Amino acid sequence: MSNEKKLVEQITSMDEDFAQWYTDIVKKAELADYSSVRGCMIIRPYAYAMWENIQAGLDKRFKETGHHNVYMPMFIPESLLQKEKDHVEGFAPEVAWVTQGGDEELTEKLCVRPTSETLFCEHYAKIVQSYKDLPKLYNQWCSVVRWEKTTRPFLRTAEFLWNEGHTIHETKKEAEEETIRMLNVYTDVVENLLAIPVIKGRKTESEKFAGGDATYTIEALMHDGKALQAGTSHYLGQNFAKAFGMQFLDREGKLQYVHQTSWGITTRLIGAIIMVHGDNDGLKVPPRIAPIQVIIVPVAQHKAGVLDKAAELKERLSKIVRVKVDDSDKMPGWKFSEYEMKGVPVRLEVGPKDIEKNQVVLVRRDTREKIIVPMDEIESKVTELLDNIHESMFNAAKKVMEEKTSTAVNMDEFKDAVENKTGFVKAMWCGDAECESKIKEITGASSRCIPFEQENISDTCVCCGKKADKMVYWGRAY
Amino acid sequence: MSNEKKLVEQITSMDEDFAQWYTDIVKKAELADYSSVRGCMIIRPYAYAMWENIQAGLDKRFKETGHHNVYMPMFIPESLLQKEKDHVEGFAPEVAWVTQGGDEELTEKLCVRPTSETLFCEHYAKIVQSYKDLPKLYNQWCSVVRWEKTTRPFLRTAEFLWNEGHTIHETKKEAEEETIRMLNVYTDVVENLLAIPVIKGRKTESEKFAGGDATYTIEALMHDGKALQAGTSHYLGQNFAKAFGMQFLDREGKLQYVHQTSWGITTRLIGAIIMVHGDNDGLKVPPRIAPIQVIIVPVAQHKAGVLDKAAELKERLSKIVRVKVDDSDKMPGWKFSEYEMKGVPVRLEVGPKDIEKNQVVLVRRDTREKIIVPMDEIESKVTELLDNIHESMFNAAKKVMEEKTSTAVNMDEFKDAVENKTGFVKAMWCGDAECESKIKEITGASSRCIPFEQENISDTCVCCGKKADKMVYWGRAY
Repeated sequence: MSNEKKLVEQITSMDEDFAQWYTDIVKKAELADYSSVRGCMIIRPYAYAMWENIQAGLDKRFKETGHHNVYMPMFIPESLLQKEKDHVEGFAPEVAWVTQGGDEELTEKLCVRPTSETLFCEHYAKIVQSYKDLPKLYNQWCSVVRWEKTTRPFLRTAEFLWNEGHTIHETKKEAEEETIRMLNVYTDVVENLLAIPVIKGRKTESEKFAGGDATYTIEALMHDGKALQAGTSHYLGQNFAKAFGMQFLDREGKLQYVHQTSWGITTRLIGAIIMVHGDNDGLKVPPRIAPIQVIIVPVAQHKAGVLDKAAELKERLSKIVRVKVDDSDKMPGWKFSEYEMKGVPVRLEVGPKDIEKNQVVLVRRDTREKIIVPMDEIESKVTELLDNIHESMFNAAKKVMEEKTSTAVNMDEFKDAVENKTGFVKAMWCGDAECESKIKEITGASSRCIPFEQENISDTCVCCGKKADKMVYWGRAY
Repeated sequence: MSNEKKLVEQITSMDEDFAQWYTDIVKKAELADYSSVRGCMIIRPYAYAMWENIQAGLDKRFKETGHHNVYMPMFIPESLLQKEKDHVEGFAPEVAWVTQGGDEELTEKLCVRPTSETLFCEHYAKIVQSYKDLPKLYNQWCSVVRWEKTTRPFLRTAEFLWNEGHTIHETKKEAEEETIRMLNVYTDVVENLLAIPVIKGRKTESEKFAGGDATYTIEALMHDGKALQAGTSHYLGQNFAKAFGMQFLDREGKLQYVHQTSWGITTRLIGAIIMVHGDNDGLKVPPRIAPIQVIIVPVAQHKAGVLDKAAELKERLSKIVRVKVDDSDKMPGWKFSEYEMKGVPVRLEVGPKDIEKNQVVLVRRDTREKIIVPMDEIESKVTELLDNIHESMFNAAKKVMEEKTSTAVNMDEFKDAVENKTGFVKAMWCGDAECESKIKEITGASSRCIPFEQENISDTCVCCGKKADKMVYWGRAY
């Protein structure tokens, strides 16, 4: 009853108020709820099931590439956090501190991990002696805390879930290869499971990870033209190795410092799913990670044989897809809009007439297309349709990204692009951090990445006009 | 090299020093490591892989019984923790407090969750209005923190991993059924995946969960005769419902309070695996959760064809079991003791002579039995053997538990049983908390549970001699 009531109210149109549209979907598709804990959210069953599917896709790939999961403590002593100078400067201002355990004041305060490089380093320093112990390819699934001032569900919360990979290697070359390998794993999952196209590239010096040598990123574009950093992979060089004494005897018997990487991807991906695929009727969940891939809605379910047929179809389909029957006493119309709000990729309708004709009706969430399918062929048709929907969603998102990508050769064009065209701006940059911050100040657009696929937009920096050979993607960002 | 060196040193004998034997296994089987964070441990890849398998077994059963996973914040504001009086009294003395976020002092301190009833209650109170919204069957996988003074890896640590189920129901009957259902799920996993026999029963009032009406438990017995609480399921009644206002409109349109349960099982199960199954050569991992079920050790691997054959066998076996080849340049003898330490259930040896005879040698970790098997039959033989090992390990553990279980009808017998026979003591109890605490004071044995399967040991309380009709399992415990 209460559910039905919620559904009749329309959600805010995304053209009218994108931020409110986002919040409405989060609430009405029952993805997250606020808690009484400042900046922390509750991930509700439907969104958590998406995360479990994303996690399974990632974890499989992590293991296939030789990684092992571990679990490190959630606390980091202040002195440990301080060991790597740039790292502590980057993270200390935004951590939560435990100062009291039971009734006792702690002699050293502990931060709740914002990321766990320091803990992994301390452990690696103890367990690695020789090149024979390398590489170490560890990953952990956990939550981390960053004391953000302003928060939004999934996109920016004081606590979020993520994976953090931490690896150490014998040579620079191996570590650099690992960094790119894991960026490619993230790309694979985001594009091929989430149907979200991304731009791959390297972060500028001012946007890179605190304590690292290089940060690589995948950047996605939301419906409102704002960019979202969807995953990052860092080459940490030997910075932490030197701070934590991570040394090993090499093949010549000499002591060397290890070369290190770390990489992470978070629950903000669910925010990206909402903002890349959603529309004014709600969410569209990419089929490969959808908790419900097919929702069976019986029509005229009080009539003889309808519910039995629905159950039979569910039984058959459950062998190949995630399927559910809604045989509640709500009207079919209510059910249609409920599952549209929740973005279930395929609705299967079956009623007395369909049974008579030995057919079912499949309705795509993405295009609304209705397809009549012989009852005998549902397995193959549904499988085909889900793949088809994935492709369509990816292509639609890619088209939007391309349409919202402009080029600029001077600041006037740049400002115009950001304000009127929205989206990514491709422009040349001289490499000077001053130009980068000036661009951000003037337009609100930060450098998103120096893409691997370079184009020569012009020969001069869009900001200072000096010689420039780097093409950069810029954009306002989440 | 460093690994080999570690392995030649024998571990402490369990008869000599059980605690040191335990610590040696944790270290040498590479299960956990200490961190610089007081009371927190690092779960290393091999132990974490066991936890992943345990988790998968539990999660499957949770989902089959209709539960959904969610994620709640890791922090609880002080005022929220205080809402249920008994609950806060039970947990507040042992929580870690966050008092500072970034540079700012918090106006209200936040505890790091020791358990999440309060957060679930707050959420449920918001989302449940009618009996149609019930039951809510949620679970979460996370880490929790309890500020323990003395800690031991897996058994008692300031932070540990667990599942916490939280459900609310329309009727008391449904909630009580759920409490027992989940206790049975825990029993199923502990007995049928971990090969650990347990005693099922109810906790006494003084041992029950802070804030609940009844706590049910499964109790296992370790090799040294000490008991270990392996999982608990709580019927919370309407205590939290009243404190948090969790009300719904029932079928007659009247406002009612929900009936509630919670249940949890933790990484201490890994401690139980060590102490129930291990021996003086190391760990014995129960086959069904073993990260490596079969280790292939090539013999005379430099000879032509040996490594190829090992790879071929791995290829075949990997379709049905978790299998690894160790083709490192260590001597087979080193490898044998390494995988014995790690408790891999089956070792498969293959050398030139075996290849000639078209056979392999299978060696059981639990009984050391060697079995020669025709190469064509390895799939069926290995499958059979793993089941066989599971049964044997379970039966061996059950035998130890039975041998170490005594009965006592008076305090002299009780003291004698605890001191000389070790293990569980079955004795009658009048139900008075004073007798319970007196028994603990005198013997060090606490009440473990009032088992579902009652026996009439005598007619009078073992402590005060008054009439008694409850048989209780007592024991010193971890």
